Amino acid sequence: MIDQRLLPGEYREVSFSSYVQVAEAIQQMVVRGAPAIGASAAYGMALAAYTSTASDILAFKDEMFKAREVLLRARPTAANLTWAIDRMLQVFENSEPGNIDDLRQTMLEQAQLIADQDVQINKEMASHGAKLMGDNETVIHHCNTGALATVDWGTALGVIRMAHEQGKNPHVLVDETRPRLQGARLTAWELEQYGISYEIITDNAAGFFLSSGIIDRVLVGADRVAANGDVANKIGTYMLALAARDNQVPFFVVSPTSTVDLSLQDGNQIPIEERDPGEVLRIQFLGARVAPEGARARNPAFDVTPHRLITGIVTENGVVYPPFEVHLRQAVIAGEH
Amino acid sequence: MIDQRLLPGEYREVSFSSYVQVAEAIQQMVVRGAPAIGASAAYGMALAAYTSTASDILAFKDEMFKAREVLLRARPTAANLTWAIDRMLQVFENSEPGNIDDLRQTMLEQAQLIADQDVQINKEMASHGAKLMGDNETVIHHCNTGALATVDWGTALGVIRMAHEQGKNPHVLVDETRPRLQGARLTAWELEQYGISYEIITDNAAGFFLSSGIIDRVLVGADRVAANGDVANKIGTYMLALAARDNQVPFFVVSPTSTVDLSLQDGNQIPIEERDPGEVLRIQFLGARVAPEGARARNPAFDVTPHRLITGIVTENGVVYPPFEVHLRQAVIAGEH
Repeated sequence: MIDQRLLPGEYREVSFSSYVQVAEAIQQMVVRGAPAIGASAAYGMALAAYTSTASDILAFKDEMFKAREVLLRARPTAANLTWAIDRMLQVFENSEPGNIDDLRQTMLEQAQLIADQDVQINKEMASHGAKLMGDNETVIHHCNTGALATVDWGTALGVIRMAHEQGKNPHVLVDETRPRLQGARLTAWELEQYGISYEIITDNAAGFFLSSGIIDRVLVGADRVAANGDVANKIGTYMLALAARDNQVPFFVVSPTSTVDLSLQDGNQIPIEERDPGEVLRIQFLGARVAPEGARARNPAFDVTPHRLITGIVTENGVVYPPFEVHLRQAVIAGEH
Repeated sequence: MIDQRLLPGEYREVSFSSYVQVAEAIQQMVVRGAPAIGASAAYGMALAAYTSTASDILAFKDEMFKAREVLLRARPTAANLTWAIDRMLQVFENSEPGNIDDLRQTMLEQAQLIADQDVQINKEMASHGAKLMGDNETVIHHCNTGALATVDWGTALGVIRMAHEQGKNPHVLVDETRPRLQGARLTAWELEQYGISYEIITDNAAGFFLSSGIIDRVLVGADRVAANGDVANKIGTYMLALAARDNQVPFFVVSPTSTVDLSLQDGNQIPIEERDPGEVLRIQFLGARVAPEGARARNPAFDVTPHRLITGIVTENGVVYPPFEVHLRQAVIAGEH
């Protein structure tokens, strides 16, 4: 993994040899972004398989389900975590279990497949999304949804990247995304490398630019999408969606169907992770304290944007429009054929 | 002045001996907050008077109007700056101009009067505002509107302070207020000293808490209020107002009538200051860079909240409700009698 906590100051790749380390890396946000978390958890499961000392299939299966619990606990909101892990555990459902070495091999191949498919799915989403965009659009983007948040290419940022490659010359206002500054640190770092025009803004300035009439579109990713189209995404997405709606600016979510959780009727049922208050009280990765000694903080990592504020959801199976309750299910099923 | 750039890490009082230094202090935000800026500019004018070497009244008056221009340029949005300076220049309108020494004396007395009245006005607003509040309310507050933003006591924070002194036990969710972190640094510092319960949140988390149903009220200050009740205030206020409205949470602006600019029909006419992008790219007062080298940023310091999102405006002459176009003018005139 690239240690995303250190960017843009330092580029460092890190390796792990156990699923517990992978779970810690997910929890501490060495790796982040729903699709990247999913793929990392898949490799975590493969590591669990290869480091297992179980001598029979039943004991091995027990260990794999124990690993599942440890990895799931790392981040409660991202749907891709459950999705990827449960896809890894399908080895126990398919036909003959075979021997442990076969299962290990199958699980590693499955993890590699999840990673490879993620890149392909991202490019399909980017292609659908870029069709929506005209020339010279100014787009507001929240958090980081680029190559760093996925296996490669990106979701919302992938759409912008595709539009850029198509010569559409997008300009991005990058929400800095407090508290961890994924926009100012990671998205800006990616855009620098792609040669895409951008300016960083504070999250609370998005409303100013939306009401000024210069914004053509808002593009965000997702951490979990409920069956009715309510979207849990990085904290601040809801306020951004409100400001887009108040100014009639199209608001699109770019998210693979692996992020859709059809088991949840609406966004109220999505568990919202609350992280260490220290992320608010200090500036992450600088370690410097901004608040007075003794200060307390709250730090919800996500919020829920009601589907009524969302123009469309770009998936690898096409752009989904309201009524989301009907069309989202169709898009998910389309991918299962 | 207290150098507000250094808090909460360091408490340092600084003195100035020329109006140019005062203008610089306002521009660099050694002092900030519309009422505090107004009073500071008044003393700046008094300094201009006492440091003037003019030998006749006409030359003296020219110098005072030159000082006016320099001070006005320091921050374009805050109405109190114009208001206070023009009140200082009324010495040239009243009766006989007298001699220069008399004018100096009158101007110093006027500055002291502006400062003293600010404290009194703040307490009147606090009294009106606190009547709106019930016991154990949880309030979201943006930026800093306390004693530091005024001569003493505070506007929006003054209301909370009054409710606290009345035993109403308010709890404050303090918007950290990027980019300069006036909430996390200054408001938290004040609340610590008053013994008022609070937690800091990132600005983009306000929507999460508003939609969770735990917020009773949003209280903010103002930098300029147009005749129709549109309010220019610290960047982020508009998005906060949208989130309050979307969840039917009362949104009150607390602002002296000196912040009301009846010469402007609506908020579109309010000049919005855009500050140094470095405030976004670096963490202010730590000097540490968060964005990659070469990154650009936009940094509007204020936004305009349309009057349709505002429940009421608390002034020293009472709480003003819609239609603001009618009632705001009445409140301003009430103070002139």
